Amino acid sequence: MTSKTSRRAFLTATAAGGAATLAAPVYAQGKRTLKMATGWPKKFPGLGVASQRIGDAITAASDGRLTVQVFGAGELVPPFEAFDAVASGAADLYHAAEYYWQGKSTAFNFFAGVPFGMTTAEHNAWIYHRGGQELWEEVSASFGVIAFMAGNSSAQAGGWFNKEINSVDDLKGLKMRIPGFGGKVIDEVGGTAVTLPGGEIFSALQSGAIDAGEMAGPWIDLGFGFYKAAKYFYNPGFQEPTSAESLGVNLDLWNDMSAADQQIIKLAAAQENVMNPADFIANHSRSLDILLKEHGVELRSFPDEVMIELGKATKKVLDEAAAADPMTGKVAASYMAFLDEAAGWTEQSEQAYLRARSLARAAG
Amino acid sequence: MTSKTSRRAFLTATAAGGAATLAAPVYAQGKRTLKMATGWPKKFPGLGVASQRIGDAITAASDGRLTVQVFGAGELVPPFEAFDAVASGAADLYHAAEYYWQGKSTAFNFFAGVPFGMTTAEHNAWIYHRGGQELWEEVSASFGVIAFMAGNSSAQAGGWFNKEINSVDDLKGLKMRIPGFGGKVIDEVGGTAVTLPGGEIFSALQSGAIDAGEMAGPWIDLGFGFYKAAKYFYNPGFQEPTSAESLGVNLDLWNDMSAADQQIIKLAAAQENVMNPADFIANHSRSLDILLKEHGVELRSFPDEVMIELGKATKKVLDEAAAADPMTGKVAASYMAFLDEAAGWTEQSEQAYLRARSLARAAG
Repeated sequence: MTSKTSRRAFLTATAAGGAATLAAPVYAQGKRTLKMATGWPKKFPGLGVASQRIGDAITAASDGRLTVQVFGAGELVPPFEAFDAVASGAADLYHAAEYYWQGKSTAFNFFAGVPFGMTTAEHNAWIYHRGGQELWEEVSASFGVIAFMAGNSSAQAGGWFNKEINSVDDLKGLKMRIPGFGGKVIDEVGGTAVTLPGGEIFSALQSGAIDAGEMAGPWIDLGFGFYKAAKYFYNPGFQEPTSAESLGVNLDLWNDMSAADQQIIKLAAAQENVMNPADFIANHSRSLDILLKEHGVELRSFPDEVMIELGKATKKVLDEAAAADPMTGKVAASYMAFLDEAAGWTEQSEQAYLRARSLARAAG
Repeated sequence: MTSKTSRRAFLTATAAGGAATLAAPVYAQGKRTLKMATGWPKKFPGLGVASQRIGDAITAASDGRLTVQVFGAGELVPPFEAFDAVASGAADLYHAAEYYWQGKSTAFNFFAGVPFGMTTAEHNAWIYHRGGQELWEEVSASFGVIAFMAGNSSAQAGGWFNKEINSVDDLKGLKMRIPGFGGKVIDEVGGTAVTLPGGEIFSALQSGAIDAGEMAGPWIDLGFGFYKAAKYFYNPGFQEPTSAESLGVNLDLWNDMSAADQQIIKLAAAQENVMNPADFIANHSRSLDILLKEHGVELRSFPDEVMIELGKATKKVLDEAAAADPMTGKVAASYMAFLDEAAGWTEQSEQAYLRARSLARAAG
């Protein structure tokens, strides 16, 4: 963080001239091409399609004043380097997931999703109306970036297992591909979290290098063919009850933009934050059906006592992360306060409604 | 529907010239002011604020090429006449809820919300990715309107009751303010649905003219002071598990617009479809807390057997509506097919996750 902070301090000292130099060429003849680095392959279902839709929306709404050029993961920079590329101005935009940057600040995890944390609806409430966006801008600005919610793969599945989990003891020694805070929770209960790119999960499951792995949910997981390498599909997950994507913008570029262009970028991000989770919900349903009926996948769920232990481990992991870094502590405090408040209404409304709907549907 | 159909047929016959005449003056010196009629008071929490945010986003993103002038309910036309005003060109846009137009076609109800129907996440999946938008455009085009999702007050509360509901018998003879399909369900189980504007619910509850009434949920209901006129607050509701708002546009105006302006309007609507439900979730939580702790409101829930009977009555009401009108039948078939599919995944994911979260939170 120090080198970026120094760069920002330098830029502030040299004022507008410095910013213009970094982001040049700005609008040549009133037009500018924006390079977008992304965290996934180009046109990948759900994710790559979302990146492209954001780019196309910006291009169309600005009538070509801004033209967005979308690069798949690795085409411009590797996925985990998209943030640095935008921070340095090598790319103008990124479309990725904030937990990719947890090495820079653990606080970024809270803008993607947290084990036993908020649902997608609650997370958006926190981000847009209860201080989440402001905290996010504080974290990102120190690196020279501003970012907005721009999609969500919704509640993640529990994952693919080659071993049944019937008690907490079954988690001990379990080698599982699971990133972020979720991985730390698995470590906490005696398992071993493994970090692997999505594309390597299948062979690791098949070779026995890992006992379990989680990626997203039925739609994406069906595409990866995990059902061929693992026997049990566990649901629900505990690790990412919401899994947000984000659109990052180089902060100097942002500050140079007209209010109209800023508005267009914010609108394109917000549109994706409703279109994209809808895409996942639409396709998870259909894909679950294919997994169960065509591929004979066995659905399982973690016993209640396992969920309770994972919940306790989560509390420990989050408390430790909050204590280890002041900015993470500040973000965690805001997040947990709203979660405590929101969970009460969710229990009374969405959660109780879904239970009643299941009852009514079962009764015909 | 016939007069509008004739008007459309006439316009088609006279081609582009006719359309331009109706929507004139189109872009005077490249600029145009758009009048937005709304279904609620100007700057009303949640709803009026949403209308204004849509208008401001269009104005800002178009750099003033389009300037949206927002009118509260009754300022330009009464709320239920906003659709006709947009259809005739007397207004350019409306921001309202589609069930307001159920007198024109019962099919409109499916674009707002249906008892025991889809949640907000499922509804967006159907609208954006499983044919909902295309069916909506088919219904609206026959009246000279095109509309987009533009907000959602999320799952509605069960309502305010001066009588406890301990069995299905307690619903017999119950006079309840509840609109749309929900009202038909109350009629079906032996109650009497009453149609009243939101502003008249309080006095009707207080005078005993009605025994119960539902409006939205804790945030809006707290503002109306219903807790002073009714003893019990029932949750969850069965009548509107999602309650969408929409942005309607005069179809001739839409067809005259540039692709950039069309994109800006779609983006402003989509932004509101994520910002607005987030606003409700953020404020329902806080308001529920105030109702329970400061006003001593008694929370109640309908017994399971009551929910099951309401579910059966809903099925009858929806089947009858679908059989009575071909377009409603077509929309209902699409809606019910996706609901059947989506409910399975929701049970496995969001619903099961929320149950696990409650368990883990209760265990500390």
